[in-house]
Amino acid sequence: MRILVTNDDGIFAPGLWILAKELKSVARVVVVAPDREQSATGTAITLRQPLRVQRVTPVVPDVDTYSVEGTPSDSVILALGKLTENGVDMVISGINRGSNLGDDVLLSGTVGAALQGYLRGLPAIAISIASADSHHLDNAAKLAALLAKKILAGTLPADLFLNVNLPDLPLAKIKGIKITQLAHKTHIDTVEEGHDGRREYYWLVRQKLGTNTDKDTDIWTLEQGNISITALHNTLFQKPPLGITDSLCSDLFQKLKQS
Amino acid sequence: MRILVTNDDGIFAPGLWILAKELKSVARVVVVAPDREQSATGTAITLRQPLRVQRVTPVVPDVDTYSVEGTPSDSVILALGKLTENGVDMVISGINRGSNLGDDVLLSGTVGAALQGYLRGLPAIAISIASADSHHLDNAAKLAALLAKKILAGTLPADLFLNVNLPDLPLAKIKGIKITQLAHKTHIDTVEEGHDGRREYYWLVRQKLGTNTDKDTDIWTLEQGNISITALHNTLFQKPPLGITDSLCSDLFQKLKQS
Amino acid sequence: MRILVTNDDGIFAPGLWILAKELKSVARVVVVAPDREQSATGTAITLRQPLRVQRVTPVVPDVDTYSVEGTPSDSVILALGKLTENGVDMVISGINRGSNLGDDVLLSGTVGAALQGYLRGLPAIAISIASADSHHLDNAAKLAALLAKKILAGTLPADLFLNVNLPDLPLAKIKGIKITQLAHKTHIDTVEEGHDGRREYYWLVRQKLGTNTDKDTDIWTLEQGNISITALHNTLFQKPPLGITDSLCSDLFQKLKQS
Amino acid sequence: MRILVTNDDGIFAPGLWILAKELKSVARVVVVAPDREQSATGTAITLRQPLRVQRVTPVVPDVDTYSVEGTPSDSVILALGKLTENGVDMVISGINRGSNLGDDVLLSGTVGAALQGYLRGLPAIAISIASADSHHLDNAAKLAALLAKKILAGTLPADLFLNVNLPDLPLAKIKGIKITQLAHKTHIDTVEEGHDGRREYYWLVRQKLGTNTDKDTDIWTLEQGNISITALHNTLFQKPPLGITDSLCSDLFQKLKQS
Repeated sequence: MRILVTNDDGIFAPGLWILAKELKSVARVVVVAPDREQSATGTAITLRQPLRVQRVTPVVPDVDTYSVEGTPSDSVILALGKLTENGVDMVISGINRGSNLGDDVLLSGTVGAALQGYLRGLPAIAISIASADSHHLDNAAKLAALLAKKILAGTLPADLFLNVNLPDLPLAKIKGIKITQLAHKTHIDTVEEGHDGRREYYWLVRQKLGTNTDKDTDIWTLEQGNISITALHNTLFQKPPLGITDSLCSDLFQKLKQS
Repeated sequence: MRILVTNDDGIFAPGLWILAKELKSVARVVVVAPDREQSATGTAITLRQPLRVQRVTPVVPDVDTYSVEGTPSDSVILALGKLTENGVDMVISGINRGSNLGDDVLLSGTVGAALQGYLRGLPAIAISIASADSHHLDNAAKLAALLAKKILAGTLPADLFLNVNLPDLPLAKIKGIKITQLAHKTHIDTVEEGHDGRREYYWLVRQKLGTNTDKDTDIWTLEQGNISITALHNTLFQKPPLGITDSLCSDLFQKLKQS
Repeated sequence: MRILVTNDDGIFAPGLWILAKELKSVARVVVVAPDREQSATGTAITLRQPLRVQRVTPVVPDVDTYSVEGTPSDSVILALGKLTENGVDMVISGINRGSNLGDDVLLSGTVGAALQGYLRGLPAIAISIASADSHHLDNAAKLAALLAKKILAGTLPADLFLNVNLPDLPLAKIKGIKITQLAHKTHIDTVEEGHDGRREYYWLVRQKLGTNTDKDTDIWTLEQGNISITALHNTLFQKPPLGITDSLCSDLFQKLKQS
Repeated sequence: MRILVTNDDGIFAPGLWILAKELKSVARVVVVAPDREQSATGTAITLRQPLRVQRVTPVVPDVDTYSVEGTPSDSVILALGKLTENGVDMVISGINRGSNLGDDVLLSGTVGAALQGYLRGLPAIAISIASADSHHLDNAAKLAALLAKKILAGTLPADLFLNVNLPDLPLAKIKGIKITQLAHKTHIDTVEEGHDGRREYYWLVRQKLGTNTDKDTDIWTLEQGNISITALHNTLFQKPPLGITDSLCSDLFQKLKQS
C-alpha cells in the first residue's frame, strides 16, 4: 500500500514531514510537494508552462521525495501520472499550518491537492491545524494515520474526500470529533494600498468574517474545541456520506486518545 | 446599475469585449481582467505578492477598464474592494474560449472569477462557448445580456451563481436551453515528458474523458446541441435552485431567438 | 529600412509610443516589447520556459506590434529570430522612464534589450529620460530619430551600442550633448523588512549613492544639465569609439534645437 | 574571515556544496542562494516584488544557509544587506554546471551574483566548469580556495572581479592557467516554435557559434585545455588588472597540482 503525501506550505514545512513520518507506520510513503509555499493557489494547475521536478533528500529516511516547481495540484498530477511507478492508494495533503474552513476550502491549495487525488478515484484527505504556530501537529498526524489505516483496511469505503481540521490544542483539551458542513460567506479579501518607491501596488489580505453561529458548520465546531471532519465528496460532489458517521468519529477519537 | 466583466483569457480576448459591448445595453460596464491568459488558475488568489494594476484604453468606448497582473479571482477582488467606487451589482465572467464543464468547473479561472462575486453576495455568471475557435460569441453575449436584464429587474433572485455553456453553433442549430448537473470524473491530466536541450521537463495536458452518457449532465446536454445552465449555488453551496426553472429556460431561448 | 523598438516599461508605456511615432519618419517601425513592466531585469533571458507572444493593436497606426510575456531581451531575440521576416536594421530601446546611468546600466532592462541587438551585429541605442514623470519625452524621441537617420545614412558606423540619457528639461534649458564614461559604485540596494500578516518578507530598494564628481562620467554630465551619450561598445566591448565624437555631439544638438 | 557562497543552479546543486565544503578550510562560509535554478537571469534583480527567504538545513555542516525565492543577484544583495550580521569579506559564485564564456558572461546568473559583490566593494569570483556533467568539480573548488586564500591573506588586492572557467578534465590533462579576454559574438539564441495543444509558443535555445580562433580569448584558451581567468574588473570596469599576472597563474597551477 502506498500513500502520496503533499501540501501547500512547501516541501520543507514541518507539518509535511511529521505527517509523512507517522504515515510510514501505515504504508509506504511518497512525498511530492511544491518547492515553495503555494498558499491560496486553490485548484490551480499549470497548463501553459512545463514543470520542473527535482528528486531531493527526504527529511524522513526511506521516503521517495520530489520537489515540484508548481502548485499542489500539479504535484499530485505529476505524482500520479509519472513519478510513482505503480500509482498510489491514497492522497493525504497537509498538515496545513492554519485551518481550511468554510469558503477557504475552495481556495486552499491543501484541499486543491487532495481534490486531484479524488478526481482520479483515490481516497483523499486534506488535513489542517488551526494555528500558524501549530504546536500540536502530532495529533493531526496520528488522526491521519488512523483514517488511512481504516481506509486501507476497507473499514471505510474508498470513494472519500475528507477535509479535516484540528484545533491547536493538547489532546486532553479537545472535546471530540464531529461531522460538519462547510460554513459559507466566511472570509473576505480586503485590499491594502502600498507604494514601492516607484509605483503603487495593491496587496490582498484574507480575513475571517465575524463569528459563525450555525452549529453544524466546520467553523463553529472547531471554535468549540472539536476536531471537524467535512465529507467534501458529499458536499461538493453530491455523493453519499459513505460511512462518515458519528460512530466513526467516536471510534477515531477513542483511538486517538489511546495512541 | 453596474456590471463587472472579467475573464481568464486576458484583457484583450475578443470574447471579453463582445460581452462587454452587449452588456452596455443593459447597464454600465466596468472591465477588470488579467493582463495575460490565466487558464486553469481555478480559484487561485494572490496573497504572497502585491498586485499591479494599470488603467488601459478600452476596446469598447466608455468602459472603465483595468488590467491586473494577477488571476481572474484577484481581478474581481480588486474590482470589488478598490477599483469601483460604489461597487457593482453583478459579476459576469467570460466569454471563455472553450467550454467549462464537469470537473473543469473547479479548475476554471472563468468560474473562479464568478465565484468571488458570489462569495461577496453578488449574482454571478460564468459563460463559455464550446470551441477554441468561438465563431458564435454573439449568442453567448446576447444570452448573458438577457440573464443580466432579468436579474437586475428582479425577475430572477440575486443569490445566483450560474455556469452557462453554449455550443459553438449558429442559433438556428441550437436545440434549446437546459438546466443541468455537473458531470463528474470528466477530465484527466496526462503528463508529457520533454527536454529543453539542458534539462528534462514535464508538461501537463488536460484531456476530456470518453463520452458522458448521464442525461442530466452539462456535458451530455451540450453535446446534444443544447445550451447548458448549471446552478452552481445549488450544486456547490447547497442553496435552493432559486427560479432556475424549465420555464425560465424556454423564455430565455425564445427571447434569444428574437434578439 | 526597419527599426525594432522595444523597452522595459511594458508595451503600453507612453515613452515607447512617442519614440515609435517619431521613428516612423525615419524608417519602418516594428514594436516588440514586454507585456508588463520589466524594470531591473537587466540582461535576463528566458531559457527554462517557453514564451507567449500576442499580436496587439498598435497605439500608433501602421506599426506591426507584438506583446511578449517575457523580458526585454526575450523580446529582441524573438523579434530578430522569428517575428520580423527580413530582420531589422537597428534596435532602439526606450524611452525609459528614469535614467540608466553608472552601474544601473548593467541592471537595466532597457540597456539589456539594446545589448541583444548589438550582439546580433546591429546598431543599438538605449535611451532614457531622467525622471519618472518624463515631461519631455519629445526631446528624447527626436534625438533618437536624428541618431537613427545618421546610422541608416551611413554617416555613423553601424557597429554601435549607445546609451543615451536626457535630463527631463525643456530643450532651451539643456546645455548640450556630451560623450561620457560610466560612473561606478553609483547605486546600492537596501533591504526593507515587512510582514504580510502571515509571513515576513524582504523588499529591495535601489538607491543612488551621493553625488558623483568625476567630470567625465554620465552621472555628473547629466546632473550638469547635459545630454549624456556613452559608447557602450567602447566601454563594455573594448571596441573603438567609432565616430562618437564631440563634433557629432554638437551637430546633433544643433539639429535637435532646429527640429 | 567570511565568504559568501552563491550560485545560479539553485541551492541543492552539487557544485555549490563542493565549493562550500572546500572553502570551509579557508574561512567561515555562508550560503545564500536561489531556491530554484536561475540560469540566464544575468544581472536581474527583483524590485517590483518582495522576496521570501527561508533558513534551510545545510548540506555541509556548520554553514549558515538561506534559500531565496529570487535571482542570484537578489541572493547576494539580501546576504550583504540583511542576512549576514557583520557582512562578508568575499563573494564566490558557482561552481556553475557549464562554462560562462564570451558573451554568456553578461547573461550568466553566476557572474551576475559575483557582480553584486564587486559593486559592493568586495572581491568577487565567478567559477564554472565547462560541462553539464561536471565530473571534476573538485578542481574548481580547490582553485577557488587557493584564490580565496591569496585574497584574504592580502597577497592579491581586494578590488577583484574574476571569471574563472575550468575544462571538465582530470587535473593531469589540464595544461595550465591563462589570463584571457572575453570573446565576443560567441553565442546566438535561436527560436523554436511549439504548440501545447491549445496555443502556440516560442522557446529560446542558446547556442554557441562556431570556433573562436582569437588566441587570447577565454573560449579559445579553454578549448585548448587550459583554465581561463578573465579579470572582469579590468574588462567591464576599466580598472587595472591588479596582480592578475602570468606568475600568479603558474603559482596557482603549481599549488593546484600539489593539493
